[in-house]
Amino acid sequence: MKLKLGMIGGGQGAFIGAVHRIAARIDDEYELVCGAFSSDPEKAKASGVLLGLPANRVYTSYKELIAKEKQLPEDERVQVISIVTPNHVHFEPTKLALENGFHVILDKPMTFSLAEAKELEKIVKASGKRFCLTHTYTGYPMVKEAKQFVKSGKLGKIRKVYVEYPQGWLSTFLEGDNQKQASWRTDPGKSGIAGAMGDIGTHAFNLAEYVSGLQVTKICADINIVVEGRQLDDDGAALLKFNNGASGVLMASQIAAGDENNVKVRVYGEKGGLEWQQDVANTLLVKWLDKPAEIYRTGGGYVSSFSSHNTRVPAGHPEGYLEAFANLYRNFALCVKADIEGKTPEPEWLDYPGIEDGVRGMAFVENVIASGKSDTKWTDFII
Amino acid sequence: MKLKLGMIGGGQGAFIGAVHRIAARIDDEYELVCGAFSSDPEKAKASGVLLGLPANRVYTSYKELIAKEKQLPEDERVQVISIVTPNHVHFEPTKLALENGFHVILDKPMTFSLAEAKELEKIVKASGKRFCLTHTYTGYPMVKEAKQFVKSGKLGKIRKVYVEYPQGWLSTFLEGDNQKQASWRTDPGKSGIAGAMGDIGTHAFNLAEYVSGLQVTKICADINIVVEGRQLDDDGAALLKFNNGASGVLMASQIAAGDENNVKVRVYGEKGGLEWQQDVANTLLVKWLDKPAEIYRTGGGYVSSFSSHNTRVPAGHPEGYLEAFANLYRNFALCVKADIEGKTPEPEWLDYPGIEDGVRGMAFVENVIASGKSDTKWTDFII
Amino acid sequence: MKLKLGMIGGGQGAFIGAVHRIAARIDDEYELVCGAFSSDPEKAKASGVLLGLPANRVYTSYKELIAKEKQLPEDERVQVISIVTPNHVHFEPTKLALENGFHVILDKPMTFSLAEAKELEKIVKASGKRFCLTHTYTGYPMVKEAKQFVKSGKLGKIRKVYVEYPQGWLSTFLEGDNQKQASWRTDPGKSGIAGAMGDIGTHAFNLAEYVSGLQVTKICADINIVVEGRQLDDDGAALLKFNNGASGVLMASQIAAGDENNVKVRVYGEKGGLEWQQDVANTLLVKWLDKPAEIYRTGGGYVSSFSSHNTRVPAGHPEGYLEAFANLYRNFALCVKADIEGKTPEPEWLDYPGIEDGVRGMAFVENVIASGKSDTKWTDFII
Amino acid sequence: MKLKLGMIGGGQGAFIGAVHRIAARIDDEYELVCGAFSSDPEKAKASGVLLGLPANRVYTSYKELIAKEKQLPEDERVQVISIVTPNHVHFEPTKLALENGFHVILDKPMTFSLAEAKELEKIVKASGKRFCLTHTYTGYPMVKEAKQFVKSGKLGKIRKVYVEYPQGWLSTFLEGDNQKQASWRTDPGKSGIAGAMGDIGTHAFNLAEYVSGLQVTKICADINIVVEGRQLDDDGAALLKFNNGASGVLMASQIAAGDENNVKVRVYGEKGGLEWQQDVANTLLVKWLDKPAEIYRTGGGYVSSFSSHNTRVPAGHPEGYLEAFANLYRNFALCVKADIEGKTPEPEWLDYPGIEDGVRGMAFVENVIASGKSDTKWTDFII
Repeated sequence: MKLKLGMIGGGQGAFIGAVHRIAARIDDEYELVCGAFSSDPEKAKASGVLLGLPANRVYTSYKELIAKEKQLPEDERVQVISIVTPNHVHFEPTKLALENGFHVILDKPMTFSLAEAKELEKIVKASGKRFCLTHTYTGYPMVKEAKQFVKSGKLGKIRKVYVEYPQGWLSTFLEGDNQKQASWRTDPGKSGIAGAMGDIGTHAFNLAEYVSGLQVTKICADINIVVEGRQLDDDGAALLKFNNGASGVLMASQIAAGDENNVKVRVYGEKGGLEWQQDVANTLLVKWLDKPAEIYRTGGGYVSSFSSHNTRVPAGHPEGYLEAFANLYRNFALCVKADIEGKTPEPEWLDYPGIEDGVRGMAFVENVIASGKSDTKWTDFII
Repeated sequence: MKLKLGMIGGGQGAFIGAVHRIAARIDDEYELVCGAFSSDPEKAKASGVLLGLPANRVYTSYKELIAKEKQLPEDERVQVISIVTPNHVHFEPTKLALENGFHVILDKPMTFSLAEAKELEKIVKASGKRFCLTHTYTGYPMVKEAKQFVKSGKLGKIRKVYVEYPQGWLSTFLEGDNQKQASWRTDPGKSGIAGAMGDIGTHAFNLAEYVSGLQVTKICADINIVVEGRQLDDDGAALLKFNNGASGVLMASQIAAGDENNVKVRVYGEKGGLEWQQDVANTLLVKWLDKPAEIYRTGGGYVSSFSSHNTRVPAGHPEGYLEAFANLYRNFALCVKADIEGKTPEPEWLDYPGIEDGVRGMAFVENVIASGKSDTKWTDFII
Repeated sequence: MKLKLGMIGGGQGAFIGAVHRIAARIDDEYELVCGAFSSDPEKAKASGVLLGLPANRVYTSYKELIAKEKQLPEDERVQVISIVTPNHVHFEPTKLALENGFHVILDKPMTFSLAEAKELEKIVKASGKRFCLTHTYTGYPMVKEAKQFVKSGKLGKIRKVYVEYPQGWLSTFLEGDNQKQASWRTDPGKSGIAGAMGDIGTHAFNLAEYVSGLQVTKICADINIVVEGRQLDDDGAALLKFNNGASGVLMASQIAAGDENNVKVRVYGEKGGLEWQQDVANTLLVKWLDKPAEIYRTGGGYVSSFSSHNTRVPAGHPEGYLEAFANLYRNFALCVKADIEGKTPEPEWLDYPGIEDGVRGMAFVENVIASGKSDTKWTDFII
Repeated sequence: MKLKLGMIGGGQGAFIGAVHRIAARIDDEYELVCGAFSSDPEKAKASGVLLGLPANRVYTSYKELIAKEKQLPEDERVQVISIVTPNHVHFEPTKLALENGFHVILDKPMTFSLAEAKELEKIVKASGKRFCLTHTYTGYPMVKEAKQFVKSGKLGKIRKVYVEYPQGWLSTFLEGDNQKQASWRTDPGKSGIAGAMGDIGTHAFNLAEYVSGLQVTKICADINIVVEGRQLDDDGAALLKFNNGASGVLMASQIAAGDENNVKVRVYGEKGGLEWQQDVANTLLVKWLDKPAEIYRTGGGYVSSFSSHNTRVPAGHPEGYLEAFANLYRNFALCVKADIEGKTPEPEWLDYPGIEDGVRGMAFVENVIASGKSDTKWTDFII
């Protein structure tokens, strides 16, 4: 049984919409049945044709999509809606979808503001529907392995967390050329109060908390607009304190010229440390105080069920970003289907990012930007 | 428009069948409409259900599939058939499919013998249908970049080619435990005259010829059965001569304990060299005699159209084995669709492995095994 | 002509003293002629015997060494004195040596306090003698290449600097076992106000300023004592502002369990970035916004004179930590000899760390520790 | 006590002589007392001055050096003679030195021919003097660790050995420009019957046998002269059989354009494999069939005494080529001194390459060249 999937946003030329669709297809758990790909009717229609959708399931607004789909018979109607619009069009469609009985997969950062995020949390909880926020990196098998490793206690108490996300693609004033990806990300009206911190800082933050199993409690940030003329931060770093007393450093930049997307997390405990980075995504380096470091590999016979469950091919055949993304979609589908069938989802299936990640992510955005502007050194991480 | 895809082989528990299906799904160019997944009716049926196929499109033999599909109206009928059975069931279904007007995607090695391969070549040519042999590694963007780099002449005349495919998974007598993947691969009745040479040696050989643009003309091989009790080679190496006078070394082993699938190719010309390996698949290392080595990356703004055409996400978001596989499927689909639409396929689309690769691959199998048994040093590479 | 070298500290069991002696020997510019290796007469004597020194040139205090050597005829007398004692015994012997006409090579951090450092600066300048502070990492050819690269302007204006020095060896309470290296480094009476920040933070700071050619102007630090019972910081991080407006992050830890000494620096400008780390010390990665990254290598035919001058063997034969250390000794010797011969030292020779590095390093220690204790976010980097 | 060292060859402009002298200095076990650096009296003299030798200990021929030194009082006289001349001037000076009571350190390949090598073996054995052949790579701590690892049996029976030494520096006709290093290496009158095979093939061969603990018994080689006009091989590869039934592949090339000196060895047993390469010399990768690979590191607390004995600085401070070379010199000195003191050398000290390595190395040269010319596939490895 495939779940019926709809999409809001993600019309022609959009990058992340296409990624969501590939992710949904890889494990064959979904069938795309409808979409509101664009508010421009021509563009919406063209996208629908390209995707092989019948014209009557291609809508020009999320409101129309939700209203019309709701009227369809249950066995035709969309079940899961992916929302891949810019940040300022996250909250309303998600709210409407949930309140009308649809499960939602939403691109990050979750909302335009923390207030919206907290409001959405209530809505999600009240709705009884499932909600996934696409923090892709936690979908990588070796990131999951890292989390399980920390959880196992083998490293002892966690003491230090370094996380970084250096990109270089906004090193120039791309938005001046109306480059699509750059334009909305640097526009406060569409992105919210943060640029880099919202776009990639939230990924770094989520990764740090996910792997360490800890929560940030205090923050001290340096937030910069480096490229002249830009309206939102394109670079930043933050000192962190965690709820177990550990400290950390988060770095995220979009002006690290020459860097691609090599997000990296390192976690150190009393007995050893872990290191994962996207460039060698199928490797988790486990370092020990007193014995040789070990190389854990996607597909290795020795990995945890949280890792093996999210792997498709034998070790050494690299799985990448799209498979990590697909893991979110697949686990979400397994849970929705379990719900439908009245079964209890497996712990491995439930391990997808959700509303709590989203609230914490938006809290990160607001706290890090506030800290960046503050003369006080440590500010409490407030939700 | 999606192409209608059928599959022969690849029932539950099969590894490569699932990979083909993912590859076919990733770019949404195909719709799976039928299958003969197993000769065991129960298994075939169960596989069909799992894949969401209607019962009447699930067959228990390739003959049935081809016969029944042919009778369907053209707009329902399967268009492309993927054949993912063990080697001894490659030739007949491929022949039948082609002769009945279907395009074929076939897993490697192409056939059970070189004689079959040459026969198939005639059939393919006579059929006017398209044929793809899934030499996955040539689907990687950076492998394509390597080929284009050599072709551009920037390295000067090619002088040396090293190619290797070290695996360790057959280090023990797995077939004694009836491990499915091991069993047929080590069975001369199913694999043919070669084990490792057919399974991974053909990949290495294909990669070497593809990237270098050269053809092997002479061979001198050392072929071994290392694990006691095994019936087919599980290890080998060969010295090579190419048609431009260059020399090379090919190494393939399934008893390289601890190794995964780190297939690697190095090509050296007068002015520099190239290096690609699957473990860092998104990187092509370009080395120069007199200036710094360069790191070409999947998704880089500077890569050739042959590489960028086969890339889905921005640089730094790794694409892996499944995407490489998907590139074969996608390019094949683009060509088939161009044919249907009466258009000329782009050169980038045509760059998928085909019948000539298959014939040369089977020639490699026969020549390398013969050389392994011969006391003569250099034997001509005979087709 | 070899320079006559004496050593203060570095008796049996000392780590860094032995390193200094190897560094002095590698390029044959020095002859060890005397030493005050220990205040324990037995130990001093034994060290002298081991090093093949005549008994009358082995002293039991630096005062004795300086006093007695001064009385020797000029052609016998020590010329350069290496001081490799713990931090609290840096200032006095250096002062005495300089004031008595000897050149000094001193281990880092330069002094016990910034006040001492500034005092020493005056003494060095007044003395007319040469002074070298052993910030080893700036002796690596590829670090020098990095500095020259930035200086050339090829990267455009520098915008971001990341520097890190993660070690794990103080993850446990080693000083409780009287481990020699741990004991003095964690003892405020011997190390001063800082532990990790003085020991390795100063290296990171020096590396960042050396490569970027910039100076830190503001700092915001998180300084931690992680291991229970420890008296000095064993971990820290700092946000930085530089004098051209660039920002940076410095991380140094001795509780990064499983890490060795993989000091790493990254510098980003408008057009590209540089990356160097000790684990692959012979490589400088040069990343560009719009073309393939380049791999600069120690010994490459294309490197600057600052790099090639500090290289002994052909590319690919790795030179390491001891050679980097030896480069400091060699360049210092070349300058001293040029002075003696009334020649002008080459720019490449003058490129060794000196008194200004030492003053800035001690300023770093005091500023970073003060910032760690401060509630104010950004504090001016005061000297 | 320092051993008195003399040198034959290695005058100004020679590469390897300088390397030998650094290697001898690093651990302070030697004092250079005399040399016959060149047959050109001016050059010899200048080299002596540069090295600070008294004029009467600088000779213009090895015969003079040996004759004159022999007449010196025992406590002045040279004890160990390093011979760093081109291959055709290895045998005679070594013979003369040994027969006159001097220990010898000789650069590889050992002699001009296998006949000379076997003759030298008799001379060494008759002399009662120590003899070291500088196969540098076996001086690396992690190469020694690899050997011990194999010896421990942890990998089970060895099945496969890959060794490679790709260089690119002879990609052009350098000898046409009278480049000093290229000229003698490509001159049959100075190098003997082999070029690349003698220069670097012998290193690869030695490394393979050293690490595996096995001996080659059969060989099948492809030997090429790639650069037009060259007189000796600049490229080659060989299939190998070992005395325990294992097989192997050896590759050595000097026309691998863009490659430096990244010599690499891989050894596979029944349970796992080892991988070492010079580019990451301080790492030994240990791969297992059924658990995570491990990263052994120079200086790690868990390494064998054979490795730790040959390490000077803490883990993470890379030691390189010169330290590996120094390990040969140091171990040789420790043995010579033990002999003098009537003590039994430790096993770790005795682990330096000697006459047997030299004989096998020259046998490799003759066997591999003969095999290259032969039409027979496998030829016995004859000594």
